[in-house]
Amino acid sequence: MKTNLLQSRALASDNFSGVHPEVMAALQKANAGHAIAYGADPWTDECTEVFKRHFGPTAEVYAMTNGTSANVCTFKSLLRSWQAVLCADTAHIWTDECGAVPANSGCSLLPVPGKQGKLPIESLHSLLHFQGVEHHVQPAALSITQSTEMGTLYTIEELRKIGQFAKKHQLLFHMDGARISNAAAALGVSFREMTTEVGVDVLSFGGTKNGLMGAEAVVFLTPGLGENFKFVRKQSLQLASKMRFLSAQLIALLEGDLWLRNARHSNAMAKLLEEKLRKNFPQMKILYPVEVNALFVQLPASIYKKVQEKFFFWIWDEENSVVRWMTTWDTEPEFIDLFVENLKHELR
Amino acid sequence: MKTNLLQSRALASDNFSGVHPEVMAALQKANAGHAIAYGADPWTDECTEVFKRHFGPTAEVYAMTNGTSANVCTFKSLLRSWQAVLCADTAHIWTDECGAVPANSGCSLLPVPGKQGKLPIESLHSLLHFQGVEHHVQPAALSITQSTEMGTLYTIEELRKIGQFAKKHQLLFHMDGARISNAAAALGVSFREMTTEVGVDVLSFGGTKNGLMGAEAVVFLTPGLGENFKFVRKQSLQLASKMRFLSAQLIALLEGDLWLRNARHSNAMAKLLEEKLRKNFPQMKILYPVEVNALFVQLPASIYKKVQEKFFFWIWDEENSVVRWMTTWDTEPEFIDLFVENLKHELR
Amino acid sequence: MKTNLLQSRALASDNFSGVHPEVMAALQKANAGHAIAYGADPWTDECTEVFKRHFGPTAEVYAMTNGTSANVCTFKSLLRSWQAVLCADTAHIWTDECGAVPANSGCSLLPVPGKQGKLPIESLHSLLHFQGVEHHVQPAALSITQSTEMGTLYTIEELRKIGQFAKKHQLLFHMDGARISNAAAALGVSFREMTTEVGVDVLSFGGTKNGLMGAEAVVFLTPGLGENFKFVRKQSLQLASKMRFLSAQLIALLEGDLWLRNARHSNAMAKLLEEKLRKNFPQMKILYPVEVNALFVQLPASIYKKVQEKFFFWIWDEENSVVRWMTTWDTEPEFIDLFVENLKHELR
Amino acid sequence: MKTNLLQSRALASDNFSGVHPEVMAALQKANAGHAIAYGADPWTDECTEVFKRHFGPTAEVYAMTNGTSANVCTFKSLLRSWQAVLCADTAHIWTDECGAVPANSGCSLLPVPGKQGKLPIESLHSLLHFQGVEHHVQPAALSITQSTEMGTLYTIEELRKIGQFAKKHQLLFHMDGARISNAAAALGVSFREMTTEVGVDVLSFGGTKNGLMGAEAVVFLTPGLGENFKFVRKQSLQLASKMRFLSAQLIALLEGDLWLRNARHSNAMAKLLEEKLRKNFPQMKILYPVEVNALFVQLPASIYKKVQEKFFFWIWDEENSVVRWMTTWDTEPEFIDLFVENLKHELR
Repeated sequence: MKTNLLQSRALASDNFSGVHPEVMAALQKANAGHAIAYGADPWTDECTEVFKRHFGPTAEVYAMTNGTSANVCTFKSLLRSWQAVLCADTAHIWTDECGAVPANSGCSLLPVPGKQGKLPIESLHSLLHFQGVEHHVQPAALSITQSTEMGTLYTIEELRKIGQFAKKHQLLFHMDGARISNAAAALGVSFREMTTEVGVDVLSFGGTKNGLMGAEAVVFLTPGLGENFKFVRKQSLQLASKMRFLSAQLIALLEGDLWLRNARHSNAMAKLLEEKLRKNFPQMKILYPVEVNALFVQLPASIYKKVQEKFFFWIWDEENSVVRWMTTWDTEPEFIDLFVENLKHELR
Repeated sequence: MKTNLLQSRALASDNFSGVHPEVMAALQKANAGHAIAYGADPWTDECTEVFKRHFGPTAEVYAMTNGTSANVCTFKSLLRSWQAVLCADTAHIWTDECGAVPANSGCSLLPVPGKQGKLPIESLHSLLHFQGVEHHVQPAALSITQSTEMGTLYTIEELRKIGQFAKKHQLLFHMDGARISNAAAALGVSFREMTTEVGVDVLSFGGTKNGLMGAEAVVFLTPGLGENFKFVRKQSLQLASKMRFLSAQLIALLEGDLWLRNARHSNAMAKLLEEKLRKNFPQMKILYPVEVNALFVQLPASIYKKVQEKFFFWIWDEENSVVRWMTTWDTEPEFIDLFVENLKHELR
Repeated sequence: MKTNLLQSRALASDNFSGVHPEVMAALQKANAGHAIAYGADPWTDECTEVFKRHFGPTAEVYAMTNGTSANVCTFKSLLRSWQAVLCADTAHIWTDECGAVPANSGCSLLPVPGKQGKLPIESLHSLLHFQGVEHHVQPAALSITQSTEMGTLYTIEELRKIGQFAKKHQLLFHMDGARISNAAAALGVSFREMTTEVGVDVLSFGGTKNGLMGAEAVVFLTPGLGENFKFVRKQSLQLASKMRFLSAQLIALLEGDLWLRNARHSNAMAKLLEEKLRKNFPQMKILYPVEVNALFVQLPASIYKKVQEKFFFWIWDEENSVVRWMTTWDTEPEFIDLFVENLKHELR
Repeated sequence: MKTNLLQSRALASDNFSGVHPEVMAALQKANAGHAIAYGADPWTDECTEVFKRHFGPTAEVYAMTNGTSANVCTFKSLLRSWQAVLCADTAHIWTDECGAVPANSGCSLLPVPGKQGKLPIESLHSLLHFQGVEHHVQPAALSITQSTEMGTLYTIEELRKIGQFAKKHQLLFHMDGARISNAAAALGVSFREMTTEVGVDVLSFGGTKNGLMGAEAVVFLTPGLGENFKFVRKQSLQLASKMRFLSAQLIALLEGDLWLRNARHSNAMAKLLEEKLRKNFPQMKILYPVEVNALFVQLPASIYKKVQEKFFFWIWDEENSVVRWMTTWDTEPEFIDLFVENLKHELR
């Protein structure tokens, strides 16, 4: 059983993967002479059209270089510094963005304990007192991640209820869609059914983890919300001069079904891994339903350290001895076999 | 005389140009399997080594996606909100970054009237009173752009004097090097001679305008200054997950002489344009010495509007009827001929 | 049983009370001709000396107009935007300052569930992973409130342990002392024993709730920490021009034993109220030990609403039907009698 | 000729002066039992009514502890971070607030050279290009100081023109009225004629320099502008708990004619000083028209240093050897005599 260096990282994260060949080809094709900088180019126009096809005619699109930017600039543009965003305590904006939301927007994040990565709206009521009282930050948005950081999925019905809750309480409904393609693929729905139609006001659309080189987008779904966004994007260090190369990536993903092919494959590989784990190690504790492309597994440290000698992956929760294995658009089924064989070797 | 669409933009800006083929090849080559995200990859290690060769062994390098980010994150990391940056009133940080320095760092910018784009240090003395008095922002850095926004150059001697002034007054010496390759090519010096050796503490290194897809870097030259920078970069929305694709671009530019070839060509094309203008239109007012790749020309609006029907370029100063023409790494001499022929047609 | 308007508010909050006559007299006395503005006046010098007597010779003192300012400016001066403050989820900085810490300093607050208002240091360990990892905010301080927002007290031994924990983990130890006099009076210790000697690095000293018109102070106890504070205070809108009138208040409180007389009285009145409640209503649920000047009592809404018809006080927790009763430096024992008589009337 | 310590500072600044006895009496009177904190008290209600009488029924009033706060919180509430405030380069917000506007609001200040302390609107046109272009901060307000930092006055006609200019260009019209009473007294107009009726949208009302202990106010004149201000005030550290003591000061100043008496006296004393200077030292260079309570005088350093041995005052501009002498509500005519006698002694 041998693994080479690159294979050895194949379950670490979907952002360890490279760029899909069709995306590379699109970048090459966009490299044709001079184009107006900062987004007044044909690729960016087309990118907007492509998004409208997926999300509906009200979609307003701003390409960004990464997902933290998409989240942060959204809140910076839509909220004021005395307002707050309700989120699960497992949300990327709370745990993994180095405090970028408060530091850049001034807004507070109000986390509540997540349930399998999901935001339990029933926990939010107690945070909605004190509306209008200036001693307290004013909840003005809720943010969920679809699919979640724990590899779980909100159902359409759950999304609809959150949308209604948000509307009732005059909260903006934000979706962090870093892995939105995995979610849509798993639910078997269009992007629109999962966002615009359930009441999402604004979306951070993720592309990088699904085969792009580095391109995400803020997508305003509710008309008018993007009014000042161009200023926020520039001021917040996210206006690319050679914008066409961001737009071309997003077009490549969305104009055909590349987004779906990549996401389906990635999800399928996670299912395959889950099946093999359950079959070979019936005692192994998989913490959450494997609904997209991530598995969180509890393993004794003595075991995972041995596995890590051959395979690079992240310890998710050292105290509880939990590791994360994540599949991608380019995970090979043969690698899953290889990995499980290795595990059998270590766990035997 | 015909121009196609892409040619028609060839003098608008160096960020209208595309990606040099060698850079595209490097991106393609870097697209090899999985790599650790966020910069713990071999390309990023190599990128650091390449920069050290150019700037000296103390150089500490952080890739960024654009130049505004490089400037802003530098000041955010090195200054506190009650400190100020002295700069020329033509500086990009003052005029073209949508207030990003104050908005992101809290720091104030204190602009003084520039001389042909340069910062006149003799104007700075009056801003250095009130050190230690809490009613006034405390100057803590000076920032120059090399080559300047007006297409002019600081000589090595001028840089040295600024370095001495900065040291004497305990000001950090920041260089916005969005077009640093053009400057080095024009001066015929190494990067190191123009930065580290004249006392520059920290540099915004520009790559995008010189043939990259979108990659710049903050380069700390004085040891210790980069201590907290990784947190600032992440929090300020500039930590790319697939970092290798930023690093690979910078390597492609700097490992050989691509930076120099591109810059020399760009500068030479500006010289060619200048010569032809002076020869054909001896009355034409070229505002600044053409030292790198930009010409600022005063033309009657009636004329420039007719030229703009065929060629896209920016009006720089509407009140004074000034336009900017800028050459790039891919400007063709034949295009210069074509453009001048057109001008002759309009100005006859 | 009659209550006049002013009496009717006597248990609402210690900041409903007025100014102690000795403080008014001190203000009158300080109103003597011209004095240098912004703190270069004799009162401010004396104020510093008075604080040094109470807190030790290293104390560095900056008068502020309110307690939120003291907390916020402290963190703005000592932390950087990617750092975080660990605190209880009942802390004033988390719940009652309208997000001022993150909005003004950029820093994140990381709240953990408090225990009777206290910060359980055993809960903090899991927040101290990821030191040095730029995806995560970096804990750099812990903040406790003494006495707590729940009217409880840290013992000297508890404080010492927190001090050791902070030192071990290189966390600044911040004490929000909005009611520090009540705490010192209840513990029977000097300020110094309760702060400097247990490792507190910086204190928000509260005066307003203890008989001043509006004066608090940031007191740096660890030498060197106040280095840049004067700039932060000015920039954060807290530099009073006629500073002598803040200093004179603080002197009046601290030069003799006014702080102690006021605090002792306030605490004694709370004890008196507690005794009478326990005696008259043995079933009444008093939520926390009554250690200083606040009682949190669970009452049926039908009852507290009737009591509120005559007496103004705050509902603390509507969901759990908890009200807060708070005594002050000027609470009269007769009023306690009156209030309890009323309660007997309503609860009978 | 003898001067005592307090007299010796009598020309340094109007914020060196103390509190007017009527204001002290009002504070004493307000110190009556318990009042609801944070502004829900009768004094604060009355304060609003008093302001409405002076400024018109649309006035919305928020007491603040100092003038920098009033300016900063205004811009923080009304502008977004990518917007800018046009002002003279002598404006307090640009020179004397330690960068508080950009640091707290993110907004940029765009200073233009002032003319005798006034903002020349003809200089503003070139700053109004680029509306809607995201590379540039977007001018959204202009700010003037009435009376100016140079002791000069805008006439009603000048104010009206600025108001029209602001309206035409959709700029908010902000007036820093740190010395607004001096201005109204000198012009012989009501506050309303000088603010509301010339198009001022929002005013920083100054009280401290005119006999208060420390109380200013933000006064919104255009309906609706104050919508979110209460959150900004709290978050920006300006919500006083014992608010009644701010309100009582403002009432004392404005309910009768104390504001006018104080300002008239102060202005008259400056006139007296000017007359005596012009009579005794016809060569002395007084830099600006003496229209309110400040004189800027050019004196050889050898002279002013000798005068400073007896009298404390600020060097305004060391390079040009300019000092500032400022009168106040309590300047005594006898002191003016004494001071001039001293000058005669030194200048003879």
